[in-house]
Amino acid sequence: MIFPIFFTFFLLLSTSHASVQDFCVADYKAPDGPAGYSCKKPAIVTVNDFVYSGLGIAGNTTNIFKAAVTPAFAAQFPGVNGLGISLARLDLGPGGVVPFHTHPGASEVLLVVQGTIIAGFVASDNTPYLKTLKKGDIIVFPQGLLHFQVNGGDTPAIAFPSFSSPSPGLQIVDFALFKNDLATELIAQTTLLDAPQIKKLKGVLGGTNKVY
Amino acid sequence: MIFPIFFTFFLLLSTSHASVQDFCVADYKAPDGPAGYSCKKPAIVTVNDFVYSGLGIAGNTTNIFKAAVTPAFAAQFPGVNGLGISLARLDLGPGGVVPFHTHPGASEVLLVVQGTIIAGFVASDNTPYLKTLKKGDIIVFPQGLLHFQVNGGDTPAIAFPSFSSPSPGLQIVDFALFKNDLATELIAQTTLLDAPQIKKLKGVLGGTNKVY
Amino acid sequence: MIFPIFFTFFLLLSTSHASVQDFCVADYKAPDGPAGYSCKKPAIVTVNDFVYSGLGIAGNTTNIFKAAVTPAFAAQFPGVNGLGISLARLDLGPGGVVPFHTHPGASEVLLVVQGTIIAGFVASDNTPYLKTLKKGDIIVFPQGLLHFQVNGGDTPAIAFPSFSSPSPGLQIVDFALFKNDLATELIAQTTLLDAPQIKKLKGVLGGTNKVY
Amino acid sequence: MIFPIFFTFFLLLSTSHASVQDFCVADYKAPDGPAGYSCKKPAIVTVNDFVYSGLGIAGNTTNIFKAAVTPAFAAQFPGVNGLGISLARLDLGPGGVVPFHTHPGASEVLLVVQGTIIAGFVASDNTPYLKTLKKGDIIVFPQGLLHFQVNGGDTPAIAFPSFSSPSPGLQIVDFALFKNDLATELIAQTTLLDAPQIKKLKGVLGGTNKVY
Amino acid sequence: MIFPIFFTFFLLLSTSHASVQDFCVADYKAPDGPAGYSCKKPAIVTVNDFVYSGLGIAGNTTNIFKAAVTPAFAAQFPGVNGLGISLARLDLGPGGVVPFHTHPGASEVLLVVQGTIIAGFVASDNTPYLKTLKKGDIIVFPQGLLHFQVNGGDTPAIAFPSFSSPSPGLQIVDFALFKNDLATELIAQTTLLDAPQIKKLKGVLGGTNKVY
Amino acid sequence: MIFPIFFTFFLLLSTSHASVQDFCVADYKAPDGPAGYSCKKPAIVTVNDFVYSGLGIAGNTTNIFKAAVTPAFAAQFPGVNGLGISLARLDLGPGGVVPFHTHPGASEVLLVVQGTIIAGFVASDNTPYLKTLKKGDIIVFPQGLLHFQVNGGDTPAIAFPSFSSPSPGLQIVDFALFKNDLATELIAQTTLLDAPQIKKLKGVLGGTNKVY
Repeated sequence: MIFPIFFTFFLLLSTSHASVQDFCVADYKAPDGPAGYSCKKPAIVTVNDFVYSGLGIAGNTTNIFKAAVTPAFAAQFPGVNGLGISLARLDLGPGGVVPFHTHPGASEVLLVVQGTIIAGFVASDNTPYLKTLKKGDIIVFPQGLLHFQVNGGDTPAIAFPSFSSPSPGLQIVDFALFKNDLATELIAQTTLLDAPQIKKLKGVLGGTNKVY
Repeated sequence: MIFPIFFTFFLLLSTSHASVQDFCVADYKAPDGPAGYSCKKPAIVTVNDFVYSGLGIAGNTTNIFKAAVTPAFAAQFPGVNGLGISLARLDLGPGGVVPFHTHPGASEVLLVVQGTIIAGFVASDNTPYLKTLKKGDIIVFPQGLLHFQVNGGDTPAIAFPSFSSPSPGLQIVDFALFKNDLATELIAQTTLLDAPQIKKLKGVLGGTNKVY
Repeated sequence: MIFPIFFTFFLLLSTSHASVQDFCVADYKAPDGPAGYSCKKPAIVTVNDFVYSGLGIAGNTTNIFKAAVTPAFAAQFPGVNGLGISLARLDLGPGGVVPFHTHPGASEVLLVVQGTIIAGFVASDNTPYLKTLKKGDIIVFPQGLLHFQVNGGDTPAIAFPSFSSPSPGLQIVDFALFKNDLATELIAQTTLLDAPQIKKLKGVLGGTNKVY
Repeated sequence: MIFPIFFTFFLLLSTSHASVQDFCVADYKAPDGPAGYSCKKPAIVTVNDFVYSGLGIAGNTTNIFKAAVTPAFAAQFPGVNGLGISLARLDLGPGGVVPFHTHPGASEVLLVVQGTIIAGFVASDNTPYLKTLKKGDIIVFPQGLLHFQVNGGDTPAIAFPSFSSPSPGLQIVDFALFKNDLATELIAQTTLLDAPQIKKLKGVLGGTNKVY
Repeated sequence: MIFPIFFTFFLLLSTSHASVQDFCVADYKAPDGPAGYSCKKPAIVTVNDFVYSGLGIAGNTTNIFKAAVTPAFAAQFPGVNGLGISLARLDLGPGGVVPFHTHPGASEVLLVVQGTIIAGFVASDNTPYLKTLKKGDIIVFPQGLLHFQVNGGDTPAIAFPSFSSPSPGLQIVDFALFKNDLATELIAQTTLLDAPQIKKLKGVLGGTNKVY
Repeated sequence: MIFPIFFTFFLLLSTSHASVQDFCVADYKAPDGPAGYSCKKPAIVTVNDFVYSGLGIAGNTTNIFKAAVTPAFAAQFPGVNGLGISLARLDLGPGGVVPFHTHPGASEVLLVVQGTIIAGFVASDNTPYLKTLKKGDIIVFPQGLLHFQVNGGDTPAIAFPSFSSPSPGLQIVDFALFKNDLATELIAQTTLLDAPQIKKLKGVLGGTNKVY
C-alpha cells in the first residue's frame, strides 16, 4: 500500500510572523507589560526554558528566621511567563518561621514534603484558620490573605508552594514595616505599635527612621 | 410618507430563559459562586438596584482610629455584582487613621474630596511610596499591597476609594493579628513582636489568647 | 537580648531581571499591547507615577454641552496601567449635558459630589433606568450600555466616574454619527434619521459629508 | 501477547460530585450568575446540547429594516455557556440594514456567505472604518464600538457574526432611544435631535412619551 | 437658530500618548507578549487591518487528508489581536478528514455552509459526542478537547470554525506523534501503539526516529 | 495609659448577606457554574476545607501503566474552588508511564520529589521538548498541549503536578480513542491507524465497537 506524499495540508498555519500561540517564554531584555514579559522568539526557545533545577537545592536558613524561600517565578523561570502558574521551595530549619506575609496577586497551595509545618491564614473577618501539616499534606491560602508557616517539629522541614500566577509577589509584613525608612511615628500611628517596639524591629531588620 | 409597521425584527433575541447579558444584579438569597452572587430575575430589577445612597452619609468616627469606612461593595450595592468595580466612603476625623491594610482582590484609586490625607503604600521590595493629598488628588494602590491613610490636617477629611472588584475585601493587619484568638506566642513567632506589645494590642482591639 | 544580623533571607527574590510583580507603571515610549502599556523600569518609578492631581481642576464647560470630562485613564495617569481601574472628573454647568455615550470596555460607577444630576442608562431590551442623584449618591452603568448625565439643578454639578478598566474608552453617539465624514445618506439609512436633521447636526458638530 | 486487565488507573479522577471540568451546558432552570448559567448535570447532557440548527433557517426580513438577526447565544444554544464564544445569522433583504448598534460585552467577526454587505464601525476618536464585503470576506468589530451592516447589492445577503462571548448582548441605538418611554425632551437634550424628529421615530418604532 | 462653535469638549481625551483603547491591531515587528502582539500606532491603522479576504478562497485539498484549514488568526489577521476571537475556513474534499486535534487555548464553534460534515469530540470522561451536520448547523467543541471532522457526503464540504481566542493554536495528534523525531520506542511506551504502526505513520507523515 | 473601647469601626463591612470575598469553598450540593462550584456559607467553613491529606498516600500502580494520578482538584479539595490553582500526585512504578494526555483548561508545573522522570511535551508546530528530571527539578507544560511522563529509573518515582486551574481536566489520548464505543472505522479515518491496531487497543483498554 502506498501513501501519496502530502505537503500542503495546514501549510498556511505556519507564517513568517512571530507566533503567539502555545507559550511565551520570557525575553528579559525586551519590554515587559501588565500581562508579563515579552516572548522570546520561538526559534531560540529550548527545553531548558521550560525546566528549572534551582528548587532541588536547599536554601540557606542561617538567618534570623531560620528559613529560606527559593522562587521559580517568571523572573527566574522563563517558561512559566504568561501561563498563570509558578512554584517555589521553602526550607524551614528547626525553629524556622516564614513570618506573616501575603502574595498580592496569587493564591497559594503549599505542599509539605518533609517534616511538620504549622501553617495558617487569617480571613478578612479576622478568623484564623490553622493546621499542623505532615508530609504529603497540602493547604490553600486564598489570594492576598495574610498567612504564615512555622516549623512544627525538631527537624528541618521542606515544602513547595505553588502559585496561581507566574509573578505572585511576596510582601512580608515585618519587612514592609521595619525594613525601610518609614518614620517611626508614622508606623506607630498606622499600626498602634509602641515606638520602642518599632525601633527595636527596625534595628533587627535593618530599617532606618526617615524624617519626612 | 408612511412607514409600514415592523414587528418581527430581532424578535428572536427575547427568549423565555433568564437573560445573562447586560448585568447581573445580586440576588442575596440564591447561592453565590466564585464570580459573585446569582442574578436577580431581570423582570424585578429596578433602577434602585443600580443606585446607592449610603455614601452620602458621614461614617461614625468616634472610635479608636477616628475613622470610618462605609462600603458600597456587591454585598451592599447589588447593581455592581459581576461588573468589576465598587466604591466606598472614607471619613477621617482630626487625627484619624486607617491603619495598614490590604484589599486581597482589588486595586484601589482613592479620591480626596475634603481635607488633607497622607496616603502611602509599600511595594514588595519594601519601598514605601508616600504622598500628601489635597482635595481633588487621586492615588492608586496596586492590588494586594499594604497601604494606609492618615488625616494630614486639623479638620475632618473625606475620600472615596474605588476598587477594581465588586468584592475587594479588606484585611486590616492590626485586626488580623490582634482581634482574634491567635496565641500570643504564635504571633510573637510570626511577627517578631514582643509578647507584652501583643498582649497590649489584644486588649485594645478585643483579641483573646487561645491555647492551641 | 541580641539578634544576629540576618542577610540571606529571601535574597533570591531579588533578581537582575526587570520585575513583573506589584505594578506596571506605563512607559509611553515603549510599545503597548492588548493588556496595556509597557512597564517603566521599577528603578525610575516614583510616588508621582501613582498620584494624579488633574482632577482637582474644574473642566472648561464653555461649550455646546456645558460639560467637561477630564480623564485620569492610563494614557494620562501611568500608575493605573494594568490595574483594572481608572477615574475621571465630570463638570456640568447649569443646563449641562453629557449626551448618550458608551464606554466600550468598562463598567462605570458615578459619584455625585456637588449639585444634582439626572443620570440614566438603557438596557439591551430598551428599558430605561433613570434616577435623579444628589450629593453622595452613586449609580452604576453596566459595561458598554448607552447612558447619559444631565445637570438636574440650577447650579454647577460635579461628579467623579470610576471605571473597571484603565482604558475604558468613550464613544459619544452624536460624535460617532455627526463629527466625521460619514455620508449623510449612509447615516440616514443606518439611523432612520432624516437628511436635514443629519446635515444640521453635522454642521453643529463639525462633520463633513463624504461621497463614498 | 496478553495484556493484564487494568482497572484502577485514574479511578480517583471520577468522583461523586458534579464535575466542573470540560464544559458547562446551560441549565435554564437553575440560578444564573455573572459568569453565565448554572451547569446541567453531565449525566443528562447529550450531543444535542452542543449542536444548534436554528441558523440554517432564513430569518424573516419583512420588516422596516428588511433584516433579521437570529442569535445562537447561550440563551438559545446551551452548549456555549461559559465558553467565551457564540454565533448568529444575519439576513439582509435587498435594501436591508442593521442600523447602528453595539454588543456591550463582545467583539464580533462578521463572515459574509452570500451577497454583498457594506459594513463599518466608528472608533472612539470618531474615525469611521468602512468596507464593502464580498462572499468569503470577514471584518472584525472591536468590543463595544458602534457598527452597522447594509446590503450593498440587489439580492439577499447572508452573513454569520461570531462573538467573543456566549452572551454578547445587542443594543440598537434607534431602539434604545425611540422604542421606549423616554421623554422626548430628555432625548432631545441628550442627543441634540429636534423634537419632531424624535416624535417621528417614536412613532415608527413604537415608543411613547413618558412625562417624568 | 445658531449654535455656538464648541471646541473644548472632551479635548482632554486626546493625548499625545499612544492610545490603548478601542483596539490593538497587531504590529508584527514589535515584541509580542502573553496577551498578544504589540499594537500598531493608531495613526497608521486602516480599515484593511480589520478586513480579511483570504477565507473566500478554497484551500488546496490535494493532500492525504483531502482537507485544508485556512486560518484567520492574529498571525494572519492583525485586526483580531487582543479581541478574544478569530476565524478559519475548512475545506473537506470527498472523503476528506480533519484528524483528531485540539486547540490548546480556545473553544470552537463550527458552522457548516456547504455539504455534510460528521463532527465529534470526546470529553475528559471519554464519552464521545458525535453528530452529522447539514448546511446551517453549528456545533461547539469545548476548550482543549479532542475533536475531528469528516466529510459525510460525496461532494466537497465547507465550514467556518470560530474560536474564542485570536491565537487558538492547533495541535493535530497524528502530527504531534509522527511528524517529528520522537523515538519510536518512546512513542510506543506513551501510546501503547505497536512499533510497526508507529514506523508506518512516521513514514506517511514525514517523521524520523531519533535515538535519544 | 487607657484606650477607649472602640466598637463601630468598619462595622458596616459585616452585613447579613452571604459574603463573596476572600474565598468560595465548594458546596457540592448547590448548582455549579462556568466559574466553579457554588460557595459554602462562610459560617460553616472550617480549616479542614482548606487542607487536603489525600496526596500523602501512594496511588495504586498495579495497572497496565504502572502509574497512578491522585487529584486534589476542586471536585476533591473544596478550598481551591475559584482560586485558579490545584494539585495532584503522580506515582510511577518502575517502568511506569503516564501516556500522552492534555489538561484542556490549565498549564501544569511538574515537581519531581523522588526518582527520575522523563517528561516531554509537543508544541503546535510538532516540535518535541524532552528532558530527564531528577529530584527537585520542575518542568512546565503549557496549557492544552500533549505531554507525557515516563519513569526514567529502576525505582518508584513520585511527582506533584500543580495546575493553573482548580478544575484542569485530564484527557488521555489512548482513553479518548480506545476506551469508548467510537466505531473502529471512524477512528481509523480520524487517526490513520490501522484497524487491527485499533481493535487491539480497544481490547486492552475496554472499548467497544459501536456501529453508528
